[in-house]
Amino acid sequence: MTRIVEVRAGILKKNDEIARDLRARFARAGTCVVNLVSSPGAGKTTFLQHTLAALRAEGLRVAALVGDLETDNDARRLAESGAPARQINTHGRCHLEAEMIVDHLAAWDVGPVDVLFIENVGNLVCPASYDLGESFRVALLSVTEGEDKPLKYPTMFNSADLAVITKIDLAEACEFDRATALASIHRVRPGMPVLEVSARRGTGMDAWLAELRRRAGRPQEAGLPA
Amino acid sequence: MTRIVEVRAGILKKNDEIARDLRARFARAGTCVVNLVSSPGAGKTTFLQHTLAALRAEGLRVAALVGDLETDNDARRLAESGAPARQINTHGRCHLEAEMIVDHLAAWDVGPVDVLFIENVGNLVCPASYDLGESFRVALLSVTEGEDKPLKYPTMFNSADLAVITKIDLAEACEFDRATALASIHRVRPGMPVLEVSARRGTGMDAWLAELRRRAGRPQEAGLPA
Repeated sequence: MTRIVEVRAGILKKNDEIARDLRARFARAGTCVVNLVSSPGAGKTTFLQHTLAALRAEGLRVAALVGDLETDNDARRLAESGAPARQINTHGRCHLEAEMIVDHLAAWDVGPVDVLFIENVGNLVCPASYDLGESFRVALLSVTEGEDKPLKYPTMFNSADLAVITKIDLAEACEFDRATALASIHRVRPGMPVLEVSARRGTGMDAWLAELRRRAGRPQEAGLPA
Repeated sequence: MTRIVEVRAGILKKNDEIARDLRARFARAGTCVVNLVSSPGAGKTTFLQHTLAALRAEGLRVAALVGDLETDNDARRLAESGAPARQINTHGRCHLEAEMIVDHLAAWDVGPVDVLFIENVGNLVCPASYDLGESFRVALLSVTEGEDKPLKYPTMFNSADLAVITKIDLAEACEFDRATALASIHRVRPGMPVLEVSARRGTGMDAWLAELRRRAGRPQEAGLPA
């Protein structure tokens, strides 16, 4: 077992070094980078589709990298927003790593980007351990998943900067217990801001976009006078 | 990278050997073992709660081992069925391994068991690679997750013997596309039987229990005359 732990620690250390360089590079370019993590099927792609379309409509330059083991379904869905989107196929790996981001950016003539979204592989475990050089990390949790997920996957929620509860339009049908979900999130990450959205219905998206602009250092809607 | 691959191959080979011994041991004991895999929040625990209660009511001796990174929430929920249930906390590992099953069985005075359920860690990637000595593997997919999950996580669905679509009572609210979901499953695993259930509403549970009895070599309900 010792040997595995050593090898794994080595991989993580190398990842952290690459992520540190990426972070510096994004800062120089003025690009805010958002790493979206969640269980499979929590609604990352639908949420991101609507986010990209709204930010584009305001005149922001946005783009997305999306990780999956196989298929380019999500990149195609995201590209429907009009924003550039590129698929990273991990072919069996259960998370994105900083080196994959470097490689895909090198091969992608995307031009200047104000906000780059990275949609991670759907997995509540391993993506938590891999820094991708992001500005901040958003953990999504859908109302259909069960309110105790943050307690069962504490590292993921503890490493996030913001939690977004998705599919809020299904809350009643799922008998979603909001107070228990919030208590679970705050038990692993006290004080973390929590937003509630339905990307499909548009509910809560304005608050999310305002939070995003604030964190990206663009507190006003780009198209409006300050 | 070569070194990691070698180490990983070594772990898997060792796991396979332990799983082979476990399988022989379960066969000698006449225990049918079911490995339940899915994404987090697909409804494994609710499905299993109802399954345990129904089989117990028929007079079958059933028990459950349940894996999670942290918390014993699921073992406590499963024990409400009246069946013995034991939690395996993986403390950061994203899957169960055959050795964990051996260790927990050794420490558990559970007596003779007709059907042992193993509820894996919620994760559509790594549990696919770890044989637990099970008799068969069931992949659960909820209607809330998106119909293309089998294409994105092909190994998980390809390694399963049976697919169960859960939360079918939410199908309409989620605009679930049944034909697309079935096509996705059968593209990665042609001919795999697919059941549709709502454990909460009881829908489809009779067909699942019949399938389970058949695979466990107990085609009749235990309490009824043959």
